Amino acid sequence: MTISAPGAVGMPLAAVDTPALILDLDAFERNVARMADALRGSGVRLRPHAKSHKCAEIALRQMAAGAVGVCCQKVSEAEALVAGGVPDVLISNEIVGADKLDRVAALARGARIAVCVDAVENVADVAAAAERAGVRLDALVEVNVGGNRCGADALAPALAVARAVADSRHLRFAGLQAYHGSAQHVRTVADRRDVITRAVELVRSTRALIEQSGIPCETVTGAGTGSFPLELASGAYDEVQPGSYIFMDADYNRNEFDAAWPPFEQSLFVWSTVMSRSAAVRVVVDAGLKSVSVDSGLPQVWQQDGLTCVSDSDEHFVFAVAPGAATPALGEKLLLVPGHCDPTVNLHDWFVCVRRGVVEALWPVSARGATR
Amino acid sequence: MTISAPGAVGMPLAAVDTPALILDLDAFERNVARMADALRGSGVRLRPHAKSHKCAEIALRQMAAGAVGVCCQKVSEAEALVAGGVPDVLISNEIVGADKLDRVAALARGARIAVCVDAVENVADVAAAAERAGVRLDALVEVNVGGNRCGADALAPALAVARAVADSRHLRFAGLQAYHGSAQHVRTVADRRDVITRAVELVRSTRALIEQSGIPCETVTGAGTGSFPLELASGAYDEVQPGSYIFMDADYNRNEFDAAWPPFEQSLFVWSTVMSRSAAVRVVVDAGLKSVSVDSGLPQVWQQDGLTCVSDSDEHFVFAVAPGAATPALGEKLLLVPGHCDPTVNLHDWFVCVRRGVVEALWPVSARGATR
Repeated sequence: MTISAPGAVGMPLAAVDTPALILDLDAFERNVARMADALRGSGVRLRPHAKSHKCAEIALRQMAAGAVGVCCQKVSEAEALVAGGVPDVLISNEIVGADKLDRVAALARGARIAVCVDAVENVADVAAAAERAGVRLDALVEVNVGGNRCGADALAPALAVARAVADSRHLRFAGLQAYHGSAQHVRTVADRRDVITRAVELVRSTRALIEQSGIPCETVTGAGTGSFPLELASGAYDEVQPGSYIFMDADYNRNEFDAAWPPFEQSLFVWSTVMSRSAAVRVVVDAGLKSVSVDSGLPQVWQQDGLTCVSDSDEHFVFAVAPGAATPALGEKLLLVPGHCDPTVNLHDWFVCVRRGVVEALWPVSARGATR
Repeated sequence: MTISAPGAVGMPLAAVDTPALILDLDAFERNVARMADALRGSGVRLRPHAKSHKCAEIALRQMAAGAVGVCCQKVSEAEALVAGGVPDVLISNEIVGADKLDRVAALARGARIAVCVDAVENVADVAAAAERAGVRLDALVEVNVGGNRCGADALAPALAVARAVADSRHLRFAGLQAYHGSAQHVRTVADRRDVITRAVELVRSTRALIEQSGIPCETVTGAGTGSFPLELASGAYDEVQPGSYIFMDADYNRNEFDAAWPPFEQSLFVWSTVMSRSAAVRVVVDAGLKSVSVDSGLPQVWQQDGLTCVSDSDEHFVFAVAPGAATPALGEKLLLVPGHCDPTVNLHDWFVCVRRGVVEALWPVSARGATR
């Protein structure tokens, strides 16, 4: 089923149907510009993560502001982005299975595509797909820098994978993918610095070992919105991959950020309507788990004190009204700040792009549901 | 973007691409039959909740097995179900806003549609939409039976709403909606019985008050997969609304069920591929938050001991390998049992329906993303 957009260009926000994914264009554009400013003169490239937005329109705007390309996690995301005109996509993830690898190789005929590998046996499969398609694919070796998710272990295990890549006629060793996912939400700057310092040590020693082995390592790429100033300052990274900075979310807003870091603003919201209320006690909105992901905590009401989300269900969030606070009226619309932006975006088919209270554009979430 | 199906009819399950939503047809059909058996001879009607499956094909199969119609939560869900041939839909939720109510009234021209109300001011809006469309709409008064989500309070507040419905020429008072959401996951049978006993007392006293006021109350409807045997046994309900029983999930499987209750089976899975591994320590699969909802806990690996999900991210779940357990191979496919079935289904565009290891059908999740 095609999901129609919840509003139309020119419409006031107040008239947009709910639930709807709202993008405040002024805040979004300031976030895009601030990241460009933060990297200017550093010699470090920006390759934002498109898994956050899944939207070719946004990727192209990031590139217009200086990004060299984008990252994504899935082949089908890369397909949607390339179909939308994005010329350079790093799939910052391992791709397993001949069918998927054939799709990657086919995509590489019309765009600059790179994939990650973390196992010698996977390198052979990627090379075979490149050979079948008659292309030479860029492959980066993912290194486990402490997140304990994907990635070869640092030093000798990573070298073995890099050597397998370098030894293949159908692949080009393009460097190291070194992203520490769980570091992004370590709350204090000091604790995050400790975690990233250890990651940087692993990156440096692994790069040195690979280069000492006669394999040039042109790029180290990684980092996210929570940690990128640390990777940037380390001198060990050539490229950073922040994604959420364009939107922010309640979970990222709980991080302590150093005053020197760019003040990214909340630009992403879910628009909802009060559809039931018990005056002076609670209000219930028409958005729930199917409109706002709760994996990183419940949503908050934007700039409105006295309302605290106390329960979630498929199509409802219940907000308790603090003593003395006004209870929103039935039919009143509330802007919710999602707990986690990326999986929330994936629940929607459209960004309703608003500037100063008026819908300026509707951007499709082009890779919504593209998980394969 | 249209998401293509991850497999084709006749294909072995092993060949289905991942992540994919898998429905074991044998288990699903036994669940459908067991619920019909549980209600047979009780005089209580079955109106399964379609928010669980969002699939017209499944709704029609439930009706073929004796259900009188289905429930859903949103107007756009009702539209998708009616478009798929479902003739009788109760929107078991309040609908706020003239545009949405006009869509409800338009839908009622071609199907039997009912909505819930819990506030006198909303009754006026529903009646106005019915008048504009020239239809008479069925409205049920939702009563808060302890879940503290939507619903008028029992007794006088519910009577006031029922009277407003009965007084409207454009509405027909069709009874009481009395669903206790949070009761469904109260773990022990004894504790669930206590919660539902209190709900039933509120239902009985409210129905009596409304009827003593001269307003016939033809139906009390409610109950879910966790509690329906209790509402059934109470004699106070005319209709039950279980949804998850056709699928089950890890959270429902943690409930204690009375031996006399139907043994519903796990029929819903997310098919995933091991795409990274660290032998004897962990495996990482290619499904994460965007393929399996974690609001009610992390997924489990189906009938495979020694693998415990220890972390989630957008496109990955990490499973720890217990000491001594075999580590699945790279590329091995694993069936995951979602923590919560309903929001997991909403992440997918297709049910891949499998019988004894072979794909028998592909059913679209017709109301995927239909949240308005």
